[in-house]
Amino acid sequence: MEKLKKYVSMKDEDQFYHQGAVELLVFNFLLILTILTIWLFKNHRFRFLHETGGAMLYGLVMGLIIRYVTKASDVESGTVYECEKLKSGPSTLLINITNQVYEYQYKREISHHNVNGHQGNSMLQKMTFDPSIFFNILLPPIIFHAGYSLKKRHFFRNLGSILTYAFLGTAISCIVIGLIMYGFVKAMVHMGQLKEWEFHFTDCLFFGSLMSATDPVTVLAIFHELHVDTDLYTLLFGESVLNDAVAIVLTYSISIYSPKENPNAFDAAAFFQSVGNFLGIFAGSFAMGSSYAVVTALISFLHLTKFTKLCEFPMLETGLFFLLSWSAFLSAEAAGLTGIVAVLFCGVTQAHYTYNNLSPDSKMRTKQLFEFMNFLAENVIFCYMGLALFTFQNHIFNPLFICGAFVAVFVARACNIYPLSFLLNLGRNQKIPRNFQHMMMFSGLRGAIAFALAIRDADSQPKQMMFTTALLIVFFTVWVFGGGTTPMLTWLQIRVGVDPDEDLKAEAASQSASNLDKNTTKAESAWLFRIWYGFDHKYLKPILTHTGPPLTTTLPEWCNPVARLLTSPTAYGDQLKDGDTDYIINNDELTENYESSAQTPGPAQDRTGSTHAMGKEDIQEGDLGLGGYKLQLQPQMNSPA
Amino acid sequence: MEKLKKYVSMKDEDQFYHQGAVELLVFNFLLILTILTIWLFKNHRFRFLHETGGAMLYGLVMGLIIRYVTKASDVESGTVYECEKLKSGPSTLLINITNQVYEYQYKREISHHNVNGHQGNSMLQKMTFDPSIFFNILLPPIIFHAGYSLKKRHFFRNLGSILTYAFLGTAISCIVIGLIMYGFVKAMVHMGQLKEWEFHFTDCLFFGSLMSATDPVTVLAIFHELHVDTDLYTLLFGESVLNDAVAIVLTYSISIYSPKENPNAFDAAAFFQSVGNFLGIFAGSFAMGSSYAVVTALISFLHLTKFTKLCEFPMLETGLFFLLSWSAFLSAEAAGLTGIVAVLFCGVTQAHYTYNNLSPDSKMRTKQLFEFMNFLAENVIFCYMGLALFTFQNHIFNPLFICGAFVAVFVARACNIYPLSFLLNLGRNQKIPRNFQHMMMFSGLRGAIAFALAIRDADSQPKQMMFTTALLIVFFTVWVFGGGTTPMLTWLQIRVGVDPDEDLKAEAASQSASNLDKNTTKAESAWLFRIWYGFDHKYLKPILTHTGPPLTTTLPEWCNPVARLLTSPTAYGDQLKDGDTDYIINNDELTENYESSAQTPGPAQDRTGSTHAMGKEDIQEGDLGLGGYKLQLQPQMNSPA
Repeated sequence: MEKLKKYVSMKDEDQFYHQGAVELLVFNFLLILTILTIWLFKNHRFRFLHETGGAMLYGLVMGLIIRYVTKASDVESGTVYECEKLKSGPSTLLINITNQVYEYQYKREISHHNVNGHQGNSMLQKMTFDPSIFFNILLPPIIFHAGYSLKKRHFFRNLGSILTYAFLGTAISCIVIGLIMYGFVKAMVHMGQLKEWEFHFTDCLFFGSLMSATDPVTVLAIFHELHVDTDLYTLLFGESVLNDAVAIVLTYSISIYSPKENPNAFDAAAFFQSVGNFLGIFAGSFAMGSSYAVVTALISFLHLTKFTKLCEFPMLETGLFFLLSWSAFLSAEAAGLTGIVAVLFCGVTQAHYTYNNLSPDSKMRTKQLFEFMNFLAENVIFCYMGLALFTFQNHIFNPLFICGAFVAVFVARACNIYPLSFLLNLGRNQKIPRNFQHMMMFSGLRGAIAFALAIRDADSQPKQMMFTTALLIVFFTVWVFGGGTTPMLTWLQIRVGVDPDEDLKAEAASQSASNLDKNTTKAESAWLFRIWYGFDHKYLKPILTHTGPPLTTTLPEWCNPVARLLTSPTAYGDQLKDGDTDYIINNDELTENYESSAQTPGPAQDRTGSTHAMGKEDIQEGDLGLGGYKLQLQPQMNSPA
Repeated sequence: MEKLKKYVSMKDEDQFYHQGAVELLVFNFLLILTILTIWLFKNHRFRFLHETGGAMLYGLVMGLIIRYVTKASDVESGTVYECEKLKSGPSTLLINITNQVYEYQYKREISHHNVNGHQGNSMLQKMTFDPSIFFNILLPPIIFHAGYSLKKRHFFRNLGSILTYAFLGTAISCIVIGLIMYGFVKAMVHMGQLKEWEFHFTDCLFFGSLMSATDPVTVLAIFHELHVDTDLYTLLFGESVLNDAVAIVLTYSISIYSPKENPNAFDAAAFFQSVGNFLGIFAGSFAMGSSYAVVTALISFLHLTKFTKLCEFPMLETGLFFLLSWSAFLSAEAAGLTGIVAVLFCGVTQAHYTYNNLSPDSKMRTKQLFEFMNFLAENVIFCYMGLALFTFQNHIFNPLFICGAFVAVFVARACNIYPLSFLLNLGRNQKIPRNFQHMMMFSGLRGAIAFALAIRDADSQPKQMMFTTALLIVFFTVWVFGGGTTPMLTWLQIRVGVDPDEDLKAEAASQSASNLDKNTTKAESAWLFRIWYGFDHKYLKPILTHTGPPLTTTLPEWCNPVARLLTSPTAYGDQLKDGDTDYIINNDELTENYESSAQTPGPAQDRTGSTHAMGKEDIQEGDLGLGGYKLQLQPQMNSPA
């Protein structure tokens, strides 16, 4: 009897394993469908529904099927049991049921009004997976990939504008959405749809901050495919990636904003604490991410010295790269910082230093690995967003709130883009034209981050209303704006089919030909960057990579022994490898550069020794800077005068 | 107040997220350490502790630290709560604690004697992760990679011997261990260490089946590095990979063997049901795995036809390949079959058909992706095995049982290898020499599969005793035998530094030179394979890949319209691509092959068009068969006479 019972319970357990397999199989099936669809779309050059939109659509249909076709299998789960002995929820609970002890694991806290939503269908419950999976597993590869594949040259050219949009713009957007929503909430309270104490101004700001995270996936994928004007691409890319980081930290700071007394009143101390939190978390995460990347760079740097040859084992190199980057994320999370921000800057720093140290094989492996992870994670997220509309069981559809949110999101985007562009144009030599501004306004899609932030905390009724609304806005923007990107580009007469490097060369050539406003385009936005660049080029690059001038020439005389120790033996020979030199070199050099690289395209690539088997972009990225660049020019160039 | 409370609970939740990050960080840290150690070892050609042994050692140290340094943080978790209202454990439990509802998720059933083991340290509990993670996430990439990287030629040459060792050998090993352990268990009962009803003969057999799974990782990695004699390598590789599949299905079949009355008595009906289960599950999993691979092959096959160009999007191709292979695993699990077996045969079939259809870029990407996943999963498993010695809280160390198990494992290995080798040598022309047999005996390490099977069911006291014993045997064999592999190879005077293809060529050359026992070496072991090969070459390969003769020539006349439809336009031009032809071609052909490929090594590789940027093995794998192979030879060759 005892024996038989054990076998039965073992079969139950197997049932659990199989259940997990079924859910994963559903996702696999959705992803396979999505891939086949993307393939079909790409074949027929069909661009009115982007792949992310397609993934969402499939998710939606699958959610519908799961919701209405699968039966409610688990009748027990709706009942709430009383437990007087416990004071708080322990992480594991041992329960004695008919003389058999079962172990239960803490999952979450549930509001009372949600309890009946948990009745029935266990399949639905399983499909709505833990939001921590988003933050710990699906988002990091996407954000890392964004940082790792950042086109450094164009990014730094527009650094000032990007930072303005990302920081100031997100703050504006958050406040505008918060204010408009507060108006709508007041109206709802007035109409009796909501109780006053349920929805504070901080909740509105919370909603504002999570809705301010724009999606770096859909539009940029289309832009990348169409080779849209590089400046526009870079502005949007930089904005949406950094803006995610800002929005995440902002949301967290607002959620822990806790004024002592009335949560509705303004409390200066709590406010400044929130601002302090924001700055602290952002800076901390930045530092955490960069330092991991620096460690990786240092380890990979060792591979060319005489003692060790990590580059002979590309698998180990790739593994180390992957694990250290992921550790940056995990350490930040473990330290109470924001892992996503850490992993973004980790990616940027890895691309800047470590990438140069990797063996050609590892360069390709890391790129392909992160590309692949990014691809899978992206599609899983969009499929899941589609699924969530039907599998999430506590939706609260409030028409007024939804209308208000739509209005707020568009007004906030307008208040972000147009005034800031106007201000930036006052300072920029190369203005941001009107059609670019319209396109940026149009490209303010909301995607994975907004969704993830909303689902992370969807226990109370206001939060559930926010989640439902956020989901609808994501659907609308991805389908309508995502699908409308190509027509919009045509309508706004924005250049497509641009080769980013040709672009830069042509510009440089025309500038040197007319010989006008020499050196100003570069200098205007880059004065801060110039200082940083000098430091980076003279000290960091030589220490962390095999590029840049040898330390013995850049450090003061008395540091010579240290410098010799730190300088890699190959640094002296490989000084031409630095791909960033063209940011701050002046026009004459750039022209010379352009001419010599136009004359000798072959040797430039050969000399780097690592550009074969790379994507076209890489070659271009590394190409221009190395063309015929002369070492002797470097000292003049780096003088801060 | 309400508000404040919510914030507190939100912080609690954050605590949970961070806790998860800390655990992952521990694993990351262990893996980074392992990689750095491997790198160091490889640099110093240090082979007395293999990397897997190193990973285990680090895990052990980390487990020690976690066990004795972290404090018991969760005092509540040792208490068992009574619940009279419930009849069985539901999958989710809602519990009302001080007016707040918490959701708990079912984790597992716990035996009464284990309850106090769950007291205290929540860190320890978190570190002992769910065995389903092994089976669903960590094992599939390892097994798939084994199947995908199988060296087909040498494998099929030794197919008969490998199948004998894998099926018959595992059964012998299982029964021998079971019998010996039954003797020890009887002795323990006699000595009062165990109660009679606790440990049946089926439990002994269960232990025997799980301990029969030999490890395909440690020894083979060393063999691969040292380029040990190819026949020995193939025998061991094939045996240990297939043997895992057999052991997993065997363990499952024994665990569901449930005789009606006395579980100790032999029940013929139940026994035959178990045998039927074994055969059914094995065949079903095989079919499931292969059919997914065939679907993948068909989809990827379409990519060269005029409608579609999947090969232009290597990312989509790789994604599809990855997802379909994983689906094979998940579908088998969902259908109640064995995913591991399915994924193994899926890997073999993918390598045989789909690989030929992939674009060169995707070939490389899939290989590198699975290599990387295999590398990570392997190291995680070995680290975790080290950790488990200290973090698993219900170890039962029984010296007699442990001694018995050590004796049983070695005796069983001897009973498997020596008699079977003797029998096989009766039939084999190329005998398995004595020193190979000793080496195979010595290489019977136990690793991840034995561990995973043991931890999957470690709730009752006998099962915990088995788990502890299995873990110790894994430690011992990996450290002692893994570390002793290199000295043992020297001592047994087994050839190292062998190039597998040179080997085959040399053999062929010597055979044709002496002109002795012509055609028998190939024919003896391959009569079954010859029939299969004919079918595969004439029908499957042309339908599923772009290799082999066009279907129009192999199908009967009246099938011509269908054949023309199914034949790829490139098949007519690419008929020389088939890399398997050399298994069954006779000596004359092989010699001709050898000579012409020796004369023209360049063009052969060029003609395949896909060997650049592949590993050396791939080139070799595809090389010999295509060298100067003539299409006209094919018809004679495939005649079954």
